[in-house]
Amino acid sequence: MIRVGIINVTGYAGAELARLLYMHPEVKVTSVTGRTAAGKTLAEVFPHLWPLDLKVGNELDDVDFAFSALPHGASAEAVAPLVRKSLPVVDISADFRLTDAAEYQRWYDVDHPAPELLADAVYGLTELKRSAVRQARLVANPGCYPTGALLALAPAVKGGIIEPDVVIDAKSGISGAGRSLGLTYHYAEANESVAAYAMEGHRHLPEIVQELELLRPKAEALLRVTFQPHLVPMTRGILTTCYAPLADGRAVTKAKLHELYEEFYRDEPFVRVTAEPPQTKHTWGNNLCLLYPTVDSRVGRLVVVSCIDNLVKGAAGQAVQNMNLMLGFSEAAGLDLPAVYP
Amino acid sequence: MIRVGIINVTGYAGAELARLLYMHPEVKVTSVTGRTAAGKTLAEVFPHLWPLDLKVGNELDDVDFAFSALPHGASAEAVAPLVRKSLPVVDISADFRLTDAAEYQRWYDVDHPAPELLADAVYGLTELKRSAVRQARLVANPGCYPTGALLALAPAVKGGIIEPDVVIDAKSGISGAGRSLGLTYHYAEANESVAAYAMEGHRHLPEIVQELELLRPKAEALLRVTFQPHLVPMTRGILTTCYAPLADGRAVTKAKLHELYEEFYRDEPFVRVTAEPPQTKHTWGNNLCLLYPTVDSRVGRLVVVSCIDNLVKGAAGQAVQNMNLMLGFSEAAGLDLPAVYP
Amino acid sequence: MIRVGIINVTGYAGAELARLLYMHPEVKVTSVTGRTAAGKTLAEVFPHLWPLDLKVGNELDDVDFAFSALPHGASAEAVAPLVRKSLPVVDISADFRLTDAAEYQRWYDVDHPAPELLADAVYGLTELKRSAVRQARLVANPGCYPTGALLALAPAVKGGIIEPDVVIDAKSGISGAGRSLGLTYHYAEANESVAAYAMEGHRHLPEIVQELELLRPKAEALLRVTFQPHLVPMTRGILTTCYAPLADGRAVTKAKLHELYEEFYRDEPFVRVTAEPPQTKHTWGNNLCLLYPTVDSRVGRLVVVSCIDNLVKGAAGQAVQNMNLMLGFSEAAGLDLPAVYP
Amino acid sequence: MIRVGIINVTGYAGAELARLLYMHPEVKVTSVTGRTAAGKTLAEVFPHLWPLDLKVGNELDDVDFAFSALPHGASAEAVAPLVRKSLPVVDISADFRLTDAAEYQRWYDVDHPAPELLADAVYGLTELKRSAVRQARLVANPGCYPTGALLALAPAVKGGIIEPDVVIDAKSGISGAGRSLGLTYHYAEANESVAAYAMEGHRHLPEIVQELELLRPKAEALLRVTFQPHLVPMTRGILTTCYAPLADGRAVTKAKLHELYEEFYRDEPFVRVTAEPPQTKHTWGNNLCLLYPTVDSRVGRLVVVSCIDNLVKGAAGQAVQNMNLMLGFSEAAGLDLPAVYP
Repeated sequence: MIRVGIINVTGYAGAELARLLYMHPEVKVTSVTGRTAAGKTLAEVFPHLWPLDLKVGNELDDVDFAFSALPHGASAEAVAPLVRKSLPVVDISADFRLTDAAEYQRWYDVDHPAPELLADAVYGLTELKRSAVRQARLVANPGCYPTGALLALAPAVKGGIIEPDVVIDAKSGISGAGRSLGLTYHYAEANESVAAYAMEGHRHLPEIVQELELLRPKAEALLRVTFQPHLVPMTRGILTTCYAPLADGRAVTKAKLHELYEEFYRDEPFVRVTAEPPQTKHTWGNNLCLLYPTVDSRVGRLVVVSCIDNLVKGAAGQAVQNMNLMLGFSEAAGLDLPAVYP
Repeated sequence: MIRVGIINVTGYAGAELARLLYMHPEVKVTSVTGRTAAGKTLAEVFPHLWPLDLKVGNELDDVDFAFSALPHGASAEAVAPLVRKSLPVVDISADFRLTDAAEYQRWYDVDHPAPELLADAVYGLTELKRSAVRQARLVANPGCYPTGALLALAPAVKGGIIEPDVVIDAKSGISGAGRSLGLTYHYAEANESVAAYAMEGHRHLPEIVQELELLRPKAEALLRVTFQPHLVPMTRGILTTCYAPLADGRAVTKAKLHELYEEFYRDEPFVRVTAEPPQTKHTWGNNLCLLYPTVDSRVGRLVVVSCIDNLVKGAAGQAVQNMNLMLGFSEAAGLDLPAVYP
Repeated sequence: MIRVGIINVTGYAGAELARLLYMHPEVKVTSVTGRTAAGKTLAEVFPHLWPLDLKVGNELDDVDFAFSALPHGASAEAVAPLVRKSLPVVDISADFRLTDAAEYQRWYDVDHPAPELLADAVYGLTELKRSAVRQARLVANPGCYPTGALLALAPAVKGGIIEPDVVIDAKSGISGAGRSLGLTYHYAEANESVAAYAMEGHRHLPEIVQELELLRPKAEALLRVTFQPHLVPMTRGILTTCYAPLADGRAVTKAKLHELYEEFYRDEPFVRVTAEPPQTKHTWGNNLCLLYPTVDSRVGRLVVVSCIDNLVKGAAGQAVQNMNLMLGFSEAAGLDLPAVYP
Repeated sequence: MIRVGIINVTGYAGAELARLLYMHPEVKVTSVTGRTAAGKTLAEVFPHLWPLDLKVGNELDDVDFAFSALPHGASAEAVAPLVRKSLPVVDISADFRLTDAAEYQRWYDVDHPAPELLADAVYGLTELKRSAVRQARLVANPGCYPTGALLALAPAVKGGIIEPDVVIDAKSGISGAGRSLGLTYHYAEANESVAAYAMEGHRHLPEIVQELELLRPKAEALLRVTFQPHLVPMTRGILTTCYAPLADGRAVTKAKLHELYEEFYRDEPFVRVTAEPPQTKHTWGNNLCLLYPTVDSRVGRLVVVSCIDNLVKGAAGQAVQNMNLMLGFSEAAGLDLPAVYP
């Protein structure tokens, strides 16, 4: 049995990793750390995790594989020594997602703690990077928003059917903001309310742009991406609506679009093109990404909707999916779970 | 005291009219009708309206002013005879919003019951049609989505600062779907979920396009509008996010934009340009529209957010605002209410 | 116009006072204080209160009437000097509710800052203390839970129809916990969950017992009260379910019970005995208490349900109701508002 | 692989059975029926169940084990012929829970369709009936409320520490009301509201009384049970608060109580006595029952709280637990799942 460690199990992504790995047939979580909770049992911090029977430590014990769910900055610092001694790692933070350390510095406002590892890190949007992930020692797990946006846009961008002028309007449940307290996430203030936020630019934008550029068949014109996130009053889930003008002369029908998307994601265990517009609840607790592409034929615009659970496909689930590839397991091991509905 | 009637008080817009008019200093609701509830007291249908002490009737009694909150089709049929005998009416349905009966037929799939009245009807987005509303005998109260979208876009469109290429992504609370039952609005299915709907085109689109056309300073290029509504798990509120490329050569700053919007809505009692991105909850139960315009300067795109309560500024509140103008009252009479927060 | 001050406007009770008083025809809020927000405008703290146009101060300006919405301990300290110079005050905190300073010390774990004022303070459950409130200079506004419980039990206790053995099971929305942050009130943790809390005894218990004792016609047997509060995932509202064995030989019918309750609350502007079991939403934003008494005739037990909005009848609304009596206004002045529904 | 059928998969209990059985290592769902959905695929009715790839039929195919999730009345009719040909069945409806056909008739208002099977049916509250369930061919799966109430009360009743005078105040999520539409479950009406219902007596009461009677060590005095259910605005979960006077002379401490409960449920895979008051969310999606007993020592009253997921331990999960015993599997097979949190 492979021994797995989780650095910073005390946030929602860390706790969700623990939940998913408990159901995994090939690995066992044997060590977990957490800054403020060290010394407590996992069940004291998260009563729903009582079957794991682990103590939260300060340092990771000897393990065969590690996940880091630390915040950015701290994560690279913790992960770098592990990678250097060849431990395979999936980092859930943003630290190894951007290939350019200067761009990282611009958006995250800290110098990158381990820029020399950036070249080795693989951006782990599994469906788009499968073979690289298989070889990787360090996988940078994508952000929740980029996961939803990139899976929605990849077939259209790679297929060259849209202009490089994209609006991404994302609606996220509030667990995406993490477990740190704030008035914005105080129940009485967040409930029964929708708000746009990060209107001057969200840190997930450069990730989206970087990966969309890689998908473009030929990148002549400038790629213009506007990404606007919103908080909606629910716990889990991201619905992302993407808009882009169809490329000149492309009179794509909805039927053709569905064909294109189905072909692109053929045999993917965790992506489904749905016959009807999906809802986020259909992915509650599981690793699916549901996609529904259509065309506003009145004006020649692609509209694609994607749904994911931000804590699963948007974080811990995709991390496990990447681990499965890195360790040579079946990609869906431990992740073949129907959503919890209603 | 002016006697007011509400046709079809048994839906949410009708009930909200009754609530707001109860607090109005100049009028009194003296007659209400409702198809299935006829014979019951209003309090039996809506316990929160017990102080109104009215019986739901089949037919409107003699009144000085009428609101219709019937569904489209039925509303024009009920309203036409009233208008013909010169009773001033605000129609909350869609029946008199589109000036073109053929367009109405296309979107609503019924022949217009009273096309001869279309020319007399005023589209009652009060802030944009104040003087016409004052003279009107028949006001077509705007849809909830068009209210949020048009108030968000009007200054930019009229100011000529954007290309005629607009994406409107709207997030609505579930009361917008009305009181008719359906699995989509069944608590256990709607709760903790977001979904896009009407992806093949929503009936509020032609209204939005019609009114945006009227605002354009010169309409050379074709106006391309994509409108995509979403259901979010809350009872009231619509947040609308609008996107459009800045017109060529326009390097508009956020500060300039706020100036433009503040100037446009100077002295409006029910529109506020906010210093921080607003949330729908700040309009819960009142007639405000909150606006926050900004620029995605990386790509030269206008982004504007508006928040309204769909049942107030998006329906009953705006209807009362229009009544106030039609009857010569202060525009804010009965509507000067802080939102209920939290 | 009477000038009113609110001490500590920055919590939910304070903000709700500001909202209600804005709609009051006889008074005007002219001064508000708040510990951390001093120097800001009220609209910066609570955007929904922008029409009040007030600056949050450190000290109360000269006013004719004051509300204190400070936490216990701090409130008595702030209120005592005002009372001493004969300013009429409603204190929303717990400081003047218990007549016995030792009992106060036991439950609140601080020495009472102004025990000499306890004898003058009137416990302001308006419906039960109307004439005393009219004469009072200092009114102790009841807790939210006691308001719901006492109004539900008063007719039965005073009528002598139950044994002195009462279970009070209360379900409160989360705004009752205030605006201070905590994991328990963090959206993602509180949403979609119910929990019992304060299982070792809640501070509102002694208040309930003290007032029930006053209502008993003859208090031979010991009064045994168990009060258990619960948090439910909604913003506002308390539903209280009260259980007590019918007194020996009392074969009270549901019809008789309704008669008793209706008689007890005849002509009360803010208490209604409903024909069907009520829901908290029917009181959203207004000052009503809805009551539904019934009998479990299989076992001879009274069951009474009450619904209130914890921030209105449970706090700010009742405070205004008390102010109206103290200042000689109509008791319902500024409070005649239908609930906001749905 | 054991072939399992689900009769009426189209309600929430049926769908939850399908979800849980998909993760079960020993069985495979091979046939599902549904009245209105016959001919559709399961994924068309419940998109989250797409991996099951089954068509909804009119009749059950040949299977080795069947669950019925039909409403009462219809269920007995469908189940009786299966039982007669010796197919092992778990019936999730109420049809075989009451041993007395006359009592059934009184509460359900229909004549029992198969009274001759009542004697063979085992009331499947697994923890209390384990050996009988193992031998049973027909298990009557308990109602959701009785599951929460009986597990909370069993140790105290069996231990003889309380008077036979019990108040059960239950708070249920709205999925408990099923998938049938109704205004009470319409999102805009149910959201942000709590209500008591079935105040004249709920059908789960006789089940609770019947099973409590079996637990009493000596049943001299009459057992008086009041059971009052409430709807709270969440999708899943029941929190049950039980109250009863301690038996004469019993000065039970909280510590003793925890000992008693822990001893009673020692080695139970799905019952945990918690150190802190639990919340329903800690059981979201799994088969746990969390228990927290305490004493209101001021008045000598037992207070016990239990939390379950109404669709899992309260329905489908317990049904699978019973199936596991009936088929000789490990009791926890397929059910060893952490709750989904947050």
